[in-house]
Amino acid sequence: MKKGFHGKILEINLSSGEQQETAISEEYFRRYLGGSGLAAKIFDERDYGRVSPLAEVAPLMIFSGILTGYSIPTACKAAFCGKSPATGIWAEAIVGGFWPASFKKTGYDGLIITGKAEKAVYLYFSKGVFAVQDAASLWGEDVYRTAEKLQKEHGDEIKVAAIGPAGEKEVLISSIMIDGLDARAAGRCGMGALMGSKNLKAIAIEKSEDLPPLNDNKGLAAARKKVMPKIREKAKGLSDFGTAGGVPIVEKLGDLPIRNWTVGSWTESAARVSGQAMAEKYFAKHYACFGCPIRCGKEMKVPVGPHNGTVSHGPEYETVAGFAAMCLNDDPAYVIAANDLCNRLGIDTISGSSVIAFAMELNEHGLIPKNLLADLNLEWGSGEAVLALIRQIAYREGLGEYLARGVKRAAAEFGPIAEEFAVESKGLEMAFHDPRAFTSMAVTYATGNRGACHLEGLTYYVENRSFPGSFIGLQDEFEHHGIESKALLAKTMQDFMGVFNALGLCKFLIRGHVTPEDIADWVSLATGWDMDREELFTSGERIFNLKRSINVKLGISRKDDTLPPRLLTHDRREGAAAGSLPHLGKMLAEYYRLRGWSDEGIPGPEIMAKLGLEWESIDVINGCQNYKGEIKK
Amino acid sequence: MKKGFHGKILEINLSSGEQQETAISEEYFRRYLGGSGLAAKIFDERDYGRVSPLAEVAPLMIFSGILTGYSIPTACKAAFCGKSPATGIWAEAIVGGFWPASFKKTGYDGLIITGKAEKAVYLYFSKGVFAVQDAASLWGEDVYRTAEKLQKEHGDEIKVAAIGPAGEKEVLISSIMIDGLDARAAGRCGMGALMGSKNLKAIAIEKSEDLPPLNDNKGLAAARKKVMPKIREKAKGLSDFGTAGGVPIVEKLGDLPIRNWTVGSWTESAARVSGQAMAEKYFAKHYACFGCPIRCGKEMKVPVGPHNGTVSHGPEYETVAGFAAMCLNDDPAYVIAANDLCNRLGIDTISGSSVIAFAMELNEHGLIPKNLLADLNLEWGSGEAVLALIRQIAYREGLGEYLARGVKRAAAEFGPIAEEFAVESKGLEMAFHDPRAFTSMAVTYATGNRGACHLEGLTYYVENRSFPGSFIGLQDEFEHHGIESKALLAKTMQDFMGVFNALGLCKFLIRGHVTPEDIADWVSLATGWDMDREELFTSGERIFNLKRSINVKLGISRKDDTLPPRLLTHDRREGAAAGSLPHLGKMLAEYYRLRGWSDEGIPGPEIMAKLGLEWESIDVINGCQNYKGEIKK
Repeated sequence: MKKGFHGKILEINLSSGEQQETAISEEYFRRYLGGSGLAAKIFDERDYGRVSPLAEVAPLMIFSGILTGYSIPTACKAAFCGKSPATGIWAEAIVGGFWPASFKKTGYDGLIITGKAEKAVYLYFSKGVFAVQDAASLWGEDVYRTAEKLQKEHGDEIKVAAIGPAGEKEVLISSIMIDGLDARAAGRCGMGALMGSKNLKAIAIEKSEDLPPLNDNKGLAAARKKVMPKIREKAKGLSDFGTAGGVPIVEKLGDLPIRNWTVGSWTESAARVSGQAMAEKYFAKHYACFGCPIRCGKEMKVPVGPHNGTVSHGPEYETVAGFAAMCLNDDPAYVIAANDLCNRLGIDTISGSSVIAFAMELNEHGLIPKNLLADLNLEWGSGEAVLALIRQIAYREGLGEYLARGVKRAAAEFGPIAEEFAVESKGLEMAFHDPRAFTSMAVTYATGNRGACHLEGLTYYVENRSFPGSFIGLQDEFEHHGIESKALLAKTMQDFMGVFNALGLCKFLIRGHVTPEDIADWVSLATGWDMDREELFTSGERIFNLKRSINVKLGISRKDDTLPPRLLTHDRREGAAAGSLPHLGKMLAEYYRLRGWSDEGIPGPEIMAKLGLEWESIDVINGCQNYKGEIKK
Repeated sequence: MKKGFHGKILEINLSSGEQQETAISEEYFRRYLGGSGLAAKIFDERDYGRVSPLAEVAPLMIFSGILTGYSIPTACKAAFCGKSPATGIWAEAIVGGFWPASFKKTGYDGLIITGKAEKAVYLYFSKGVFAVQDAASLWGEDVYRTAEKLQKEHGDEIKVAAIGPAGEKEVLISSIMIDGLDARAAGRCGMGALMGSKNLKAIAIEKSEDLPPLNDNKGLAAARKKVMPKIREKAKGLSDFGTAGGVPIVEKLGDLPIRNWTVGSWTESAARVSGQAMAEKYFAKHYACFGCPIRCGKEMKVPVGPHNGTVSHGPEYETVAGFAAMCLNDDPAYVIAANDLCNRLGIDTISGSSVIAFAMELNEHGLIPKNLLADLNLEWGSGEAVLALIRQIAYREGLGEYLARGVKRAAAEFGPIAEEFAVESKGLEMAFHDPRAFTSMAVTYATGNRGACHLEGLTYYVENRSFPGSFIGLQDEFEHHGIESKALLAKTMQDFMGVFNALGLCKFLIRGHVTPEDIADWVSLATGWDMDREELFTSGERIFNLKRSINVKLGISRKDDTLPPRLLTHDRREGAAAGSLPHLGKMLAEYYRLRGWSDEGIPGPEIMAKLGLEWESIDVINGCQNYKGEIKK
């Protein structure tokens, strides 16, 4: 009997309408754990890297984790995976909320959607079957309205994943949004565009309970009971004010990116846009994802803009950092409105705010042609300009046509100097923790498999002592601006964090001081495997190297493991990280050695063999040439 | 009366046949000193940056320095300038020998050649006139044979600058060669291709004595007398064994690039290919450039290859580093033959050996398609393969067609991983002093106006104590692998070195402990100006910033001020520089501040105003967009 997984995935070809079930063996789950781990394995086996991301044959892979949907703390996640239309390399966008648990209960561990529907459609799961339905009346609607219409049609119990106009228009920074107004985002890597390219507006799921029984429910209940108090205690800040509650402390540590990463201090403004300050004025209610004791979601009243007066999911830390600090706007009303608008239109708030801050800096230097500026007032801090640009991006109008491509591609349109203002790595806009404040983040951003991602390593949690390093065998204290042990920290955390997306767990568990042993325990109790801490880390390492090897076949190597010039050279001269610039080369050299990769960033045959990954280093390098011609249809 | 300069240049349009004299005011000479300084000023004024480097309208600018051709130590240099066909930015290639002094004595300070002759021509200067002559019988000949034929026609006294087949075929790493068998090279930036694109095979100059009188010949004679003993004493190593005599000590310091920059130690082999070892077996005679007491040139018997048995200019340090250490070949016979072949065919030995070492590494990884490999045995160290490839590059045949473009462009043809093996900055192959051995070189390479040039800063001379830092107001001892004061060292030396190419002096003067005061003195005595040390440095700073501003208008900024990934991340783990990797970001940050540049590497209005350079930072940044469309004809 399967435990924690169904052992099958469903493939739907929207061109032909064909559906096909494929069995996945237990061995695959044990080695890749489901979620984005298993998706990566199948992606690699099928050589999906060769496919142009927006081609008909390109896959949108949606996988739940082994623990998703069970009564296990934070087991609420699903992964949207594939080849990123934004970056051209491995993509995963993870999302919580309630949709993933419902998705898991359809009886499938994963869905691979290929092809392109002739006209707009949505998938509707009901009574064991995914049906392709006409979406003519939904196309063009925003995310909230789409969910509303679908719930009107199929009942309030259904859970909806949908794209907004941005995804429809294949905006490269578009998201896939979950749960309507209680918005959660599969935000990064342009997965909205991938879904939109298939003419697929939404995936609506009717309540179902097709979940495999677990091996030891009693044991799991006891394990849950054991960790609940520490999660509640340690993650209380998150429970009270959400991730945005962290804004002031992040600013104090020099970790907040201000004015497109150029300014080191913004103390009073940070207080004005903090989760605490927003809660005071705009709080509507708390919101928790499926199975989560932390309850970090905060719904807020939208106080300005076109949706003034509505209530929806309030801004996360990243969104505040982006639409407040990055754009130098300290009016929380506009941050809430920008967040709401991005969620409605289906735009990633990290990439969206990055590209707007980038545009503000272009404008400061007179680098935007007048016809594109039109009547936009792109002064730093202009909340109205932010709202106007979000719309332009979603609909690819005016300046938005360029910004919709993300900062890297946009920079190429505005002259060579514009590249100086494009803060990204591997084409993905940098998330909002500064590698000059915690230098381990330089390594995790530079080596992140999906690009400049803060979540693949999450090492700042260890550096800022939210999560004790001793829990993963390291010291508890790190010299923030130094390089000592930073490579080891990055590798260890990447390996540890690698299992979360695969298991369907939220990484905020580590804010609750949940340990690797706890998690290995949960997996063992759920599946009956004898998973220990070591196997857990090896699984994470396997998944990380698998994704790296996918990227290496796509041409990624040391040259791509870098940070934008601004973060390597621009000393902010004020704030807690004044004078700090990461010595990336030195840390990377150590990191590659720890990983068993060559100095060119190519996984070596020994580590790949140890992890049981098929690979011959030289052949794979050779293989890169084959990838020059993408399959475009 | 003019002193040290004629105050006029000649422009020759090879399309129309028109010639025009243009007067250059004394103020220009005082501010830019002639040579590549004055050339840069005229290049900037005329907006030559907008022109595609191989277009008909593109200029080949040949300028002598203020002191060139006079009886002043090492005053033997001319500068070939323009826009590089290899890098697309500012280009200068400086050369000594005897041709430059003859060139100065034509009565012009500079020659600007534009247009394209209908068929192959050469310029022949005789009795005050540059005449365009038919070169049908020279086209296709190698450099030595070209000089020989011209001397046969016009007499042994004439001096010849010529391109080889590589320049004719617009090979992007081709050189302009001087003085026939006594070969000196204007090697870098692909100036051979620029000359070849004009169907201009050679510039032959008959002896003439049209030199302006100097202000104080007696004073100059005394000044010369004063420095001669120290030059002879301190530069004795150069006199005895030439630059190649430095190979063993350079290796000992970890400064020698081995096996395409990956290996840290090669002691026994370095001894085998040293100038000392070569002299013992192959020495033919000493050779000195015009006016030079150092006499660093060594002519050698060529012991292998197609020109076995001939005698010509022997390999310099850079050439040995390139064809021996970089290619892992420790047979000096093949180094001499490779040098001879490059000189004959007109290929820069730094770029030529770089691109061959790069090909050897590609081959090691199986990255060269079999049809291109043909019967080449590209094993590391194969001297025969080196000779075969040099020919292929010159004639753009087989693999040579790709390598002829330089490592950066070639890498783009062999798949993304190939970039890892391309060691260049701004498109120019790195010269052979390792920034991991002397970290100041990281800054000088990264900020070199013509790309990864060792000569623009020459800071390793200070770090290895060939030239006392105290002579330029700095300390004498630097921690080789640290970052302290390295930015200041780079800036100071760039400013100091900046006047050498403009004055027509050889930088080896500093090996002879000639001081800035000495040089300022020479300029004052020659011209009658009251030039002091401070004005000398300011002139260097002005020239450096002028070239930077030319490049900024072409899109250069911080993003381009970098080193290839290999030099930032690859720790060689053995040799004197084991464990050392340059913290480039930190040094650059300091460097920009010292330079008065923004964190994006753009010269600020204050420093430009101080130097009297016309510039509005913002407008110039704006201007970049205008440069997107190059003038192609």
